[in-house]
Amino acid sequence: MTTQDNGLNDLKRGTVEILLEADLQARLATGKPLRIKAGFDPTAPDLHLGHTVLINKLRQFQQLGHQVIFLIGDFTGMIGDPTGKNVTRKVLSREEVLVNAETYKDQIFKILDPDKTQVMFNSQWMEPMPASELIQLAAQYTVARMLERDDFHQRYKNGQAIAIHEFLYPLVQGYDSVVLQADVELGGTDQKFNLLVGRELQKNRGQKPQVVITLPLLEGLDGVQKMSKSLGNTIAINDSPVEMLGKIMSVPDNLMWRYIELLSEASLNTVEQWRQAVINGANPRDIKMGFAKELTRRYHGEIAAQRAEQDFIQRFRQGALPEDISRVEIIAPNGHLAIANLLKEAGLTASTSESFRSIEQGAVKIDGQKVEDKTLLIHAGTTAVYQIGKRKFARVTLK
Amino acid sequence: MTTQDNGLNDLKRGTVEILLEADLQARLATGKPLRIKAGFDPTAPDLHLGHTVLINKLRQFQQLGHQVIFLIGDFTGMIGDPTGKNVTRKVLSREEVLVNAETYKDQIFKILDPDKTQVMFNSQWMEPMPASELIQLAAQYTVARMLERDDFHQRYKNGQAIAIHEFLYPLVQGYDSVVLQADVELGGTDQKFNLLVGRELQKNRGQKPQVVITLPLLEGLDGVQKMSKSLGNTIAINDSPVEMLGKIMSVPDNLMWRYIELLSEASLNTVEQWRQAVINGANPRDIKMGFAKELTRRYHGEIAAQRAEQDFIQRFRQGALPEDISRVEIIAPNGHLAIANLLKEAGLTASTSESFRSIEQGAVKIDGQKVEDKTLLIHAGTTAVYQIGKRKFARVTLK
Repeated sequence: MTTQDNGLNDLKRGTVEILLEADLQARLATGKPLRIKAGFDPTAPDLHLGHTVLINKLRQFQQLGHQVIFLIGDFTGMIGDPTGKNVTRKVLSREEVLVNAETYKDQIFKILDPDKTQVMFNSQWMEPMPASELIQLAAQYTVARMLERDDFHQRYKNGQAIAIHEFLYPLVQGYDSVVLQADVELGGTDQKFNLLVGRELQKNRGQKPQVVITLPLLEGLDGVQKMSKSLGNTIAINDSPVEMLGKIMSVPDNLMWRYIELLSEASLNTVEQWRQAVINGANPRDIKMGFAKELTRRYHGEIAAQRAEQDFIQRFRQGALPEDISRVEIIAPNGHLAIANLLKEAGLTASTSESFRSIEQGAVKIDGQKVEDKTLLIHAGTTAVYQIGKRKFARVTLK
Repeated sequence: MTTQDNGLNDLKRGTVEILLEADLQARLATGKPLRIKAGFDPTAPDLHLGHTVLINKLRQFQQLGHQVIFLIGDFTGMIGDPTGKNVTRKVLSREEVLVNAETYKDQIFKILDPDKTQVMFNSQWMEPMPASELIQLAAQYTVARMLERDDFHQRYKNGQAIAIHEFLYPLVQGYDSVVLQADVELGGTDQKFNLLVGRELQKNRGQKPQVVITLPLLEGLDGVQKMSKSLGNTIAINDSPVEMLGKIMSVPDNLMWRYIELLSEASLNTVEQWRQAVINGANPRDIKMGFAKELTRRYHGEIAAQRAEQDFIQRFRQGALPEDISRVEIIAPNGHLAIANLLKEAGLTASTSESFRSIEQGAVKIDGQKVEDKTLLIHAGTTAVYQIGKRKFARVTLK
């Protein structure tokens, strides 16, 4: 962290856009603690590393002495989806909101400093708001500009319905910035439009418009789609140390560099040295392990990280798993396949009766877990390492 | 009024559209008093004959035993124009709203039966409404359908701004129908879209959707634009008997027939007889007088109507005013002109000193009123009949 630039360069790392950077610079230069806002959905309190890209940035602001406002958007959550079309978005009771908030706190305070974090709920000012005030908010934005928002534009063009209340939510979110007198708001790149509405509404109220900082959406373990619980490609903050370290160790090298860029606290210089080392012949797996331990340490502490590493090394490196394990894809005709048939089709046994014998002898493992049930059905859509004895391995994807 | 059809045929007279007519018929057939809603703007309590097209229709419903709800839309009036762009639409205080309501009552009860009229204000339910409920209303309508409304469509296409709160007003108006459980709503043709929103919202709440009846917009005295106070082409309910009768007598014949169709209580048969009489050589002026007296009688009583007629006949027919009075346009160089100069320029006097002499002799009249002040200034934008003695007349428009 440099002191000359009040942290600006560190804050810029990993961001997609800062609007306006000069404004951020000027505010940082005042030396006063800034109010840094970030909004969170009250319905999904399972944080994963995708969320931490933003939360890490909040932490950086805290380390520079600024005040973080962790805003839970419970007002809209308590309305639910008024169209009733989105069944997954159920109405939350106040109790559920509070329970979710506690779950959030348990997770974010692994990263954020509780003393410099205000956890707030926008229902505090939105619930008592009369309809007349919402109308006055709505007067401050035009239909045409709202339709410029990417997703609205696409839906309108494609004849997909946009209910009118959807135009109100960005205004509510922007109004939160007015109430909170936010100096800076952080959000994913998909939130840019909404963050800019906040600037507008603040301006109309005679406030200095907030600086908007957008952050990239982290790719999930598949390396393609964004990390998202519903896509099942996440590393959750609450994953066990062994899971967390193991998942990170499983990502391909190119994704590893992306994760390091956005998630590691190693300085940019250090990361550059790692890249050079790999170019000069170092094994990327060693870099990956250092990074996997860094993250596991952050969420579970030093001791847990070391144990996870030892566990990983014992199971996969010390002869337990060969370096280049073969990958097999098998089609499950009815959506599942008996374990004995799978082992045979994967080439690990010569026949299903050999499969049965191996299971009886306790020699068959799936992802390191001994198989006890000879009639076990494996379901399509799963990938696991199947192992017989100490020599035979295959990573089987059942389709 | 026929009894067999429960008044349906009389109710249809002069309407533009009834949605759905079969539904209206069915409701009339139940014999139960229906709830007939019509909304009025709280900012313009000067009713003119344009408004009475609708109010007359309300009266017809009352005569059939139904209940009229005269709804003053004061909620939006008390918000005013939140954009601040429309300076003519100022925010009304509750006191102003109540004063305006009294003014309304003074006027409408010249037509409506107070015992079958509820005067209501939508602020009663809209003011306590929380923002969350407005959001739920907004969820019931799509952006695309709102943009189908003619004026929105045009403005959007032409790149003219539509503020988002403008999308909320039709919903508020529709919600009024839900609260009032309206059976029927009346409005001008320009209100059709909003009236249909009411049907939609009622349906969503499990109510039988209201019957929508649209009525034509009455042309003003110019015969072209709709009658509107801001266009200065109105006959107001509160015009004096002489003014009212005189204005009606001044409309051209084609407009007279339109007014008779929409404003007279004469039966359609009677009106047809009048038309035939004119075709057979009767003077349309006599028909016009009968009609002018009907309206003057309605708003001012029989005696006032007779006096106005006598006054009119005396001034204009019995030689006081020639049939074909000359029309003169004069430019006022500074926005006004001294009476002496005006008389001279209009050709009524040979010189300003002759003008002065005529005024001193009490021979000069403006619209029948003797001029006492020799230095009187006439302002641009006025039209009046200037008269010297019993022979010299000119209708002068000062521009």
